[in-house]
Amino acid sequence: MDNRPIGVFDSGLGGLTAVRELQRLLPGEDIIYFGDTARVPYGGRSRDTLVRYARQDVAFLRTFDLKAIVIACGTVSTTALDVLTEENDIPIWGVVEPAAEAAAQSTKNGLVGLIGTQATIRSGAYERRIAAEAPGVRVLSRACPLFVPLVENGRFRPGDVVAETVAAEYLEPFQDAGVDTLVLGCTHYPLLTEVIGNCMGPGVTLVNVGEKCARRVAERLGGMAALAEPGRRGESRYYVSDSVEDFSRLASIFLRQDVAAEVTQVDIWRY
Amino acid sequence: MDNRPIGVFDSGLGGLTAVRELQRLLPGEDIIYFGDTARVPYGGRSRDTLVRYARQDVAFLRTFDLKAIVIACGTVSTTALDVLTEENDIPIWGVVEPAAEAAAQSTKNGLVGLIGTQATIRSGAYERRIAAEAPGVRVLSRACPLFVPLVENGRFRPGDVVAETVAAEYLEPFQDAGVDTLVLGCTHYPLLTEVIGNCMGPGVTLVNVGEKCARRVAERLGGMAALAEPGRRGESRYYVSDSVEDFSRLASIFLRQDVAAEVTQVDIWRY
Repeated sequence: MDNRPIGVFDSGLGGLTAVRELQRLLPGEDIIYFGDTARVPYGGRSRDTLVRYARQDVAFLRTFDLKAIVIACGTVSTTALDVLTEENDIPIWGVVEPAAEAAAQSTKNGLVGLIGTQATIRSGAYERRIAAEAPGVRVLSRACPLFVPLVENGRFRPGDVVAETVAAEYLEPFQDAGVDTLVLGCTHYPLLTEVIGNCMGPGVTLVNVGEKCARRVAERLGGMAALAEPGRRGESRYYVSDSVEDFSRLASIFLRQDVAAEVTQVDIWRY
Repeated sequence: MDNRPIGVFDSGLGGLTAVRELQRLLPGEDIIYFGDTARVPYGGRSRDTLVRYARQDVAFLRTFDLKAIVIACGTVSTTALDVLTEENDIPIWGVVEPAAEAAAQSTKNGLVGLIGTQATIRSGAYERRIAAEAPGVRVLSRACPLFVPLVENGRFRPGDVVAETVAAEYLEPFQDAGVDTLVLGCTHYPLLTEVIGNCMGPGVTLVNVGEKCARRVAERLGGMAALAEPGRRGESRYYVSDSVEDFSRLASIFLRQDVAAEVTQVDIWRY
């Protein structure tokens, strides 16, 4: 039993899709969330810059006594997980492994699609993990650099012509190829689930990396006997590197609950 | 006569639209350009964060012996010009004043449209300057937060369905209101000139803030007798906070010339 909080971080708001799932699965856990809103988006930046940012994000989170850190960011999970794991003495889990395993298990026709940021697609991390899991599965991938700006601007609902136009363009090759599974390889993308689902049709399984990651965290903490005390009511606190107001407004939409009271601004450059 | 370089900075690539105009008008001038590509885009960030970033951008540029600094960024020009001017003992010029004056002079029907980033629209800086210039002119303004991500991703050409869909949505109120002048209040937007022009029609004058700013710089340096030696051939050097390769590729498109040789990466966090 371990009542220490779980640390979670992302470039901005996307990681909240994983937080929501963690709160649902593990209502007894305390969560410390950091969103690097002063430097979002991460997806188009170079590996060196991403490693630098991720180290600062982890250094800030480690000012708390945590039992584990969850990288609720597809970009950092695919480009900096190895560095972060090596440099830290607490468990650090990313989104790639559980999502890749879910995709490998889900596909019937052996054709998996992968969408993510430019850094994620460039890394090849999902492809390697899917190949290790199911060598016969073919992975078709494409970077979708406009999805994060769309989501961070609250443009993700069906009927939003811009979101639908961007999605139609990005997803066309996956429809043409006939994938039966599509990995939403960035934690921002689940907000676009309806738009993407309408585009791909009901025959295609969408893999939500934040949700798969949250389930894996629950299993791992259970396996380590490190879950919080049963019956306990967990609390979540949110930290951001830019304005609290801008975050609170959108975060409430992402989490479908008011978070204004628990948000604090952090000088991430100091870490 | 003053052969010292002019410093120019922007959040990313947009400022190059002003650099191109400076190079055309003042071929004898040396230019030191800084693009904060590790933290682009600026437009959705809070004033505090923008002031911090702008101070670091200027501190880096001031490691060179400059005769003046040009803020080739609509967001910084509208939110941090006062702070930067107060803290520095060399001339610092932004894009607002020359563009606002051009708009006030251009409008025949007294209805000016203004598009910019969220920070720029929130600042009210263009409106104040236009009101000072021409009190009877009405300014209708709208933030266009997806334009910078589009441009930074090279999505700005006519025929790009996404760029055209986004533009049609953002510009509708200006068409409805019947503005005869539209200020492109961000140095990224001139790349979208054709898309925006097709949308607004030939009766609407588009004000390119980078171009107006470059002209004003030429006038001011002339007035201060601080232009470079006649017949001199100026050189431009480019600095960025993220990967040189990613910048060079897109910058060559923006400037319509190869810049790869003169680009250097800077640790902007140290300034």
